[in-house]
Amino acid sequence: MANGFTSDGLPDEESLTAPLLHLRRSASNTTSQIAIIGSYPCPIESLDYEIIENDVFKQDWRSRSKFQIFQFISLKWILCFVIGIVVSLIGFFINLAIENIAGEKFVITSNMMIANRYLAAFLIFAAANLGLTLFACLITTLIAPETAGSGIPEVKAYLNGVDATAIFSFRTLLVKIVGSIAAVSSSLNVGKAGPMVHIGACIAALTCQGGSKRYGLTWRWLRFFNNDRDRRDLVTCGSAAGIAAAFRAPVGGVLFALEEMASWWRSALLWRAFFTAAIVAILLRGLTDICLSGKCGLFGTGGLIMFDVTSVDVTYHLTDVPPVLVLAVIGGIAGSLYNFLLGKVLRLYNLINEKGTAYKILLACMVSILTSCLLFGLPWLASCRPCPAGTSEPCPTIGRSGNYKKFQCQPGHYNDLASLFFNTNDDAIKNLFSKDTDTEFHRSSVLMFFITCFFLSIFSYGIVAPVGLFIPVIVTGASYGRLVGLLIGSTSNLNHGLFAVLGAASLLGASMRMTVSLCVILLELTNNLLLLPLVMLVLLVSKTVADAFNHNIYDQIMTLKGFPYLETHAEPYMRQLTVSDVVSGPLHVFNGIERVANIVHALRMTGHNGFPVVVDEPPILYGLILRSHLITLLKKKFFYITPTLADVDAVEKFSSSDFAKRGFRNAEKIEDIELTEEEMEMYIDLHPFTNASPYTVVETMSLAKALTLFRGIGLRHLLVVPKTSGRLPVVGILTRHDFMPQHILGLHPNLSRSKWKRLRFRFSLLN
Amino acid sequence: MANGFTSDGLPDEESLTAPLLHLRRSASNTTSQIAIIGSYPCPIESLDYEIIENDVFKQDWRSRSKFQIFQFISLKWILCFVIGIVVSLIGFFINLAIENIAGEKFVITSNMMIANRYLAAFLIFAAANLGLTLFACLITTLIAPETAGSGIPEVKAYLNGVDATAIFSFRTLLVKIVGSIAAVSSSLNVGKAGPMVHIGACIAALTCQGGSKRYGLTWRWLRFFNNDRDRRDLVTCGSAAGIAAAFRAPVGGVLFALEEMASWWRSALLWRAFFTAAIVAILLRGLTDICLSGKCGLFGTGGLIMFDVTSVDVTYHLTDVPPVLVLAVIGGIAGSLYNFLLGKVLRLYNLINEKGTAYKILLACMVSILTSCLLFGLPWLASCRPCPAGTSEPCPTIGRSGNYKKFQCQPGHYNDLASLFFNTNDDAIKNLFSKDTDTEFHRSSVLMFFITCFFLSIFSYGIVAPVGLFIPVIVTGASYGRLVGLLIGSTSNLNHGLFAVLGAASLLGASMRMTVSLCVILLELTNNLLLLPLVMLVLLVSKTVADAFNHNIYDQIMTLKGFPYLETHAEPYMRQLTVSDVVSGPLHVFNGIERVANIVHALRMTGHNGFPVVVDEPPILYGLILRSHLITLLKKKFFYITPTLADVDAVEKFSSSDFAKRGFRNAEKIEDIELTEEEMEMYIDLHPFTNASPYTVVETMSLAKALTLFRGIGLRHLLVVPKTSGRLPVVGILTRHDFMPQHILGLHPNLSRSKWKRLRFRFSLLN
Repeated sequence: MANGFTSDGLPDEESLTAPLLHLRRSASNTTSQIAIIGSYPCPIESLDYEIIENDVFKQDWRSRSKFQIFQFISLKWILCFVIGIVVSLIGFFINLAIENIAGEKFVITSNMMIANRYLAAFLIFAAANLGLTLFACLITTLIAPETAGSGIPEVKAYLNGVDATAIFSFRTLLVKIVGSIAAVSSSLNVGKAGPMVHIGACIAALTCQGGSKRYGLTWRWLRFFNNDRDRRDLVTCGSAAGIAAAFRAPVGGVLFALEEMASWWRSALLWRAFFTAAIVAILLRGLTDICLSGKCGLFGTGGLIMFDVTSVDVTYHLTDVPPVLVLAVIGGIAGSLYNFLLGKVLRLYNLINEKGTAYKILLACMVSILTSCLLFGLPWLASCRPCPAGTSEPCPTIGRSGNYKKFQCQPGHYNDLASLFFNTNDDAIKNLFSKDTDTEFHRSSVLMFFITCFFLSIFSYGIVAPVGLFIPVIVTGASYGRLVGLLIGSTSNLNHGLFAVLGAASLLGASMRMTVSLCVILLELTNNLLLLPLVMLVLLVSKTVADAFNHNIYDQIMTLKGFPYLETHAEPYMRQLTVSDVVSGPLHVFNGIERVANIVHALRMTGHNGFPVVVDEPPILYGLILRSHLITLLKKKFFYITPTLADVDAVEKFSSSDFAKRGFRNAEKIEDIELTEEEMEMYIDLHPFTNASPYTVVETMSLAKALTLFRGIGLRHLLVVPKTSGRLPVVGILTRHDFMPQHILGLHPNLSRSKWKRLRFRFSLLN
Repeated sequence: MANGFTSDGLPDEESLTAPLLHLRRSASNTTSQIAIIGSYPCPIESLDYEIIENDVFKQDWRSRSKFQIFQFISLKWILCFVIGIVVSLIGFFINLAIENIAGEKFVITSNMMIANRYLAAFLIFAAANLGLTLFACLITTLIAPETAGSGIPEVKAYLNGVDATAIFSFRTLLVKIVGSIAAVSSSLNVGKAGPMVHIGACIAALTCQGGSKRYGLTWRWLRFFNNDRDRRDLVTCGSAAGIAAAFRAPVGGVLFALEEMASWWRSALLWRAFFTAAIVAILLRGLTDICLSGKCGLFGTGGLIMFDVTSVDVTYHLTDVPPVLVLAVIGGIAGSLYNFLLGKVLRLYNLINEKGTAYKILLACMVSILTSCLLFGLPWLASCRPCPAGTSEPCPTIGRSGNYKKFQCQPGHYNDLASLFFNTNDDAIKNLFSKDTDTEFHRSSVLMFFITCFFLSIFSYGIVAPVGLFIPVIVTGASYGRLVGLLIGSTSNLNHGLFAVLGAASLLGASMRMTVSLCVILLELTNNLLLLPLVMLVLLVSKTVADAFNHNIYDQIMTLKGFPYLETHAEPYMRQLTVSDVVSGPLHVFNGIERVANIVHALRMTGHNGFPVVVDEPPILYGLILRSHLITLLKKKFFYITPTLADVDAVEKFSSSDFAKRGFRNAEKIEDIELTEEEMEMYIDLHPFTNASPYTVVETMSLAKALTLFRGIGLRHLLVVPKTSGRLPVVGILTRHDFMPQHILGLHPNLSRSKWKRLRFRFSLLN
C-alpha cells in the first residue's frame, strides 16, 4: 500500500524493510490533506483486544497456574511502580538541567549587560541559543527523526491502535530527553510537557518490552506482556506519569491520559494510572524538598512549575462574569486561529524539511536566530519603569528569575518587557500569574509579548526537534489574559494574575479542546481551588467557540502525519452504507488443512494479516488465522506429507509464547523463511491455530453499526458473513482501513461530501 | 421468573402488575445471598445501546432533517443546563433547610441547658429527633419505598442497564428531597450526598421523560430522547451534578460519575457532565455569596461543606510517611470491617422490615431514640476543659456551630465531646478538620466519638428513609484520623487537622473503593492541593488493603438488592465455557410472515423480549424482533388476511416514534390487547420491523469473549448461531441473565466454585 501500512493496519512489509522518505499519500484522491510530516518510516500496526480462541491458547490458559497468575499481577503493578519512579526521576532531571543551563545563560548575559557590554551579551546569548538548537536539531535529524515534535499525537495514535515504528525505542527515549533539554534551554518558545508524555510512554513501552530483555528478566515473566492490551495499559499509565511529572499535577495527568490519550478505558486502568501518578507526585515532592534547600544549583526557586497563587483570596461577583465571558469567546477564536495557522505552517515546514537534512537544520537555525533577536531586541522598545515602593521582591532583579528585570535600565528601574522575554517560559508564566502586580506591566509591553509569543510558538513547533506545545500555549494565553485585565482596568474586581490564569485556560481550551483534565491541571498548577467555577466557565466557552471552526491541535497533527486514527463516532454517511459496500478485494481463503505452497503464496502476494479458514462441503466458516501465526508455523516447519489432522501431542509442543507478539523491530517476515520444493508440497493442519470464534457481522449491517463493534471492542479484523445461503461462508474481512473516511469516500464519491462535512460540527456535539 | 425480571432483564410482567412483597431469590440454589432489601416491586429492564436496523428506523433516519438534528443537539445541551440549574437549586434548598431545622433545634436545646433545664432539653432534643425521623420514615414507607437508602446503588445499576421501577418518578424525587432533609436534620448519623446523587439522576430522568410531558414540550422534541442512550447520558450528568451540589465539588462530581456510576463512558459524555457540573458550581457559588451576607437564617457559616484548611502551610517530610502508612493500613481494615458489618446489619434489618410497615417504623424510632440518648448522654462522660487563651473563636460557643461547645460546663470551660456530638455532622467534620486545634480534644473523647460514629452509622443506614453513607464515613474517618494524630503526638510534624483529612480518606477509600474521584472530592472539600501526595498515598493503600477482604459497599448493596449488575471483566471460569453451555430454554422463532395467533401465543407464554425471525428454505436468519415492537404492531392491527409482504406505503405510516421506548410505568402489556378470532387467524409481515443485522456470535465462542461483546457494546440480546450447517440458523439468545455468575454456576455446579472464588481478589486486580 502506498502509505506505508496495509489495509488492516498492520505493518506494510515494504515499509518495514526500507525507510520511505517520499511523501506518502492515501490511495484516495479526495484526501489531499493526508501527508506525512517528518520523514521517518511509519509502518502502522493495529491493536487487537480480541481474545484469540484457538486450541493452543486455550490449552495455555488452562495450564496457567495460580502462581503464574499471581506473578503476572504482581509484575504489572511492579512495572507501574517502576514507571512512576523512572518518569519522575527523568522529569526531575530534565527540569534540573533546563533550569541550570538556561539559568547559567541568563546569568552570564545579565552580568555582561551590567558591565554595559550589550553587543557581546547579545552575541553570547544568540550563540548559546543557536548552539543548543543546533544540537537538538542535529541529534533529532541524524539519530531519531521520529522524536520531532511533541510526541503526543504519536502516543495518542498508538493507544488507538496505530503503531508508528521506533516511537518507543531506547534511542528515541535518549534523544527525546537530551533534545528537549537542549531545545527548551535554547529559549525557543517551546515546551517540555509534550516530550514528557512521550518519554513517559517510551519508558512504559520499554519496561514491558525491550527493556526487560536487556535487563535479564526471564521469558516466564516477559511472556505475559507480549500482548497489546497490557502494553497499551502501561503506555497509558506512562503518559499519565509524563504529565504528572511535567506539571507536578498527578490528578491532571491521570485525567489527561483518560480524556485525551486513551481510546479504550477501563475503571481498573484508572486506578493503575492513578497509582503511577501518585508515585510520581510523592517522589517529586521529595526531590523538590531537597532542591528547596539549595542543593540543585540554579534550580531552587524556579522549575517544576507551581504558580503559587494560593494566598490570593479570590472573590468575584456576577458583575465579573461578562468580561470573563468576553475573554473566553475571544480566546476561543484566537485558539482556533492558532490551530489553523499552526497547521498551515506545519505544511510549509513539511515541504522544506523534505528537501533534506541541511534544510531541516537551516530552518531550525533561522528560527533560533529570529527568536534570539526578538527576545533580546524587543525589550529595548519598552521604556524603563521606576521600581515600585514596598515590594517584597528585590527590584530590579539581577540574575536568573524574578519579577523585575533590570536589562538596560538605570538602577532603581526595571524593564517590564524584559521581565517577560528575558526569562525562561516557566518564569514568564510565574510573573504573569503572580498577584498584586497589576501595575507592573504596561499595556503595550504585554500586547507586544502576546503577539510575539503567539507567532513564535507557531513558527517554533515545526522544527525537527523534540518540542512541545503546552507551555507556549500557556504563556501566550497568560499574556492574553493579562492584556484583557489591563484593558478592563479597575472596572473588574479580579486580580490581573487571575486574568492571566483565565487567559491561559481559554487558549488551552481552544487549542487542545480538553475540559476536565485542563481544568484540573490549571488548578494543580495554581493551587487555588476557589478559581474553579471561573476556569470551568472559560474552558467550556472557549472550547465550544473553537469547536465551531476546526479540530483540536493533536487531531490535526495526526491527520497531517497520516495516522489512520479510528474515531469513536460514526460519520453520518456510514449509516447509509452497508459493510458489503466497502469490503473489497480478492479474498484469500484457506482450507482447514492447506498446502504449504498456497500459504506461502498468499503471504507473499498480499499484505493481509488475517485469513479466513473454511472447512467441509458445503463450506462453513471455521475461523480466522493470523499472518504472524502462519509465519511461526512455517518457521517451525510443522508440516505433514499428506493432508493429516495434527495430533494433540504435536500441538502441545507449541505454547502461546511461540505466538506472542513481537516487539516493533522483531516482526518476522515471510521473505526470511526458506523452504525446499518438497516442503512446499506438504500440508499444514491449521485447525489448532485458527481463532475458531472470531467476531462476525452480516453483510447487510450498516457500516456505522459495524464500526461500533470494531471500535468498541478494539478489533483488528472483523469477518463479514453472507446473509443468504449457498455462497462462500465469508464475504470479506473488515479492517481499520475500511472505516477510514477517505477510503469510503473514495469508493463512493457520490456521497455528497460537502453536505455531510457541514454537519460535522453538529455531530461532534451529538456524540 | 422468581426474582421479578425476565431472563433478558426486561420487566417481568407479573412484577409490573402486582408488587411483590415477598423475598425474592434467584432461581439458583447456590446463591443464598441474593435477596431484595426493601419491599418495592423491582422489574428490571436492560438497556440497549445497539443500533436497531429495521426498515422503519432506517427510513426515519433518512427523513430526519438537518433542522431536527439541530433541535436534538440544542435540546440535549439545554437539558444539561436545566439539570444543572435545578440540581443546584435543590441542593442549596436542602442545605438551607437542614441547617435551619437542625440549627433551630440545637439553639433551643442549648438555651434550655444554659437555663439548667437539662431534662427538658433532652426531651425536646429527643422528641424533635424522633419526630423528624418518624416523618422521614413514614413518607418513605407509605409514599415511595424505593427512596430508602442512598439511591447510589439504584442509579449505578440503572446506568449498567438495570431499571428498577419508580426509582425516577416525580413522587420519588419529592419524597427523597423532603425525607433526606428530615432524616439529616434529625441528628441521625446519615448523610445527604447519596440522596443528592439520586435526586440529580431523578431530575435528569424526569427532564427527558415524564417531566417533559407534564410541561408541554411537543412530541417532536420529546421523541429524540425516547432511547436508552440519551436517557442514560443525562442521568450520568445528573448524578455528577448531585455530587457537585452535595460537596460543592464539581470536578469531583464528574469523576465520581465516571469512576463509580457510569458503565459506559464516552469522551463526549465527559464534556457534557463537566458542563452540568460547571453550571452547578457557578450557581452554588452565587447562592452561597448571598447567604454569606446573612440572609439565610442560620445557614450563613455552616452548610455546603467546605472545610477550609487553605491557609495551613502543609509541610511534611519522609519521616511523616510511616505513620501515614500505618493510618492507611488500619483504615483499610476498618473500612472493610465497616462494609462487612453494614452488610450483616442490612440483612438483619431486611428481615425486620419485611414484617410490615409497623416494624419499619418501630425500627427507625428505636434508632432515633438510641441516637438521641448517645448524643445527649455521652458528652456528660467527658470532663470540662478550660478554654484556651488567645483563640480567635469565642469560647465557649453558645448557639449553633463553633469549636467549643459549652454544654453542661461552667463559663470559661467547654466540653470537647459535645463539640463533636452536639452538632450537625458537617460542623463536626469542620471541627475535626480544623487546624491549630491539636489540644482541643482529649484522646478518650475522640476515641468515644469514633466508636460511636462507626456503629451508629452502620445501624442508621438500614432504616427505611432516604439516607446516605458519604458523610457518616467522612465523620467517622475524620475522628479516626484525629485519634491517630493524638496517639502519635508530637513525634509527627503533621497537624491533627491534616490527620483527620487523611483518616477520612482512608475510611472512604476502604469503604467506597474509589481513587481519583475521592481524591479530588477531598481536595475540593479542603481546598488544599498541597495535601495531594499524602491523600493519594492513603487512598491507594487503604483501597488495596480493603480489596483483599471484600467488595465495595455499593456493589454489596446491589448484590443484596438482587440487581443483575453486569461486570466488565469475565470471571475466570467463563473462559472454560462456551456460549452453548449456558444458552438454554425452548426458542421461539417467528417466520418472516407470521400468524397473529402464533405471535400472541409466544408473547403470552414467554417473558422473552426478543424473538429471532427466520425466512426461506433452507432457513436463514433474517433478524431479531423486539416484544415491544410486536405489541405495537398488534395494537395497530397491521394485519393481512393472507400471507402478504407489506407494501411500502403501509410501512411508511409507521414512524420510529411509534416504536420509541416508553417511560417506566407506560410499558404496554400483551394482556391489554384484545383481538377477535378472525384477527387471530390473520398474518403480519415482520420484515420491515425486524432488526435485520443483529450482532451474532458463534456457539463455540467462549462465554468470556461473548461477555466482552455484550458488555462492551451494551446489548440486550445477542443471537447465537450454529457452527455447523444443516441446523436451524439460530441456536439461542444470550441475555444479561445468562452472564450472571449465579445462573452459570447453577447450570454448572461442577465448576469448583471455591477454587475460583479464592482467585477473585487477584482477578479484580488483574483487570
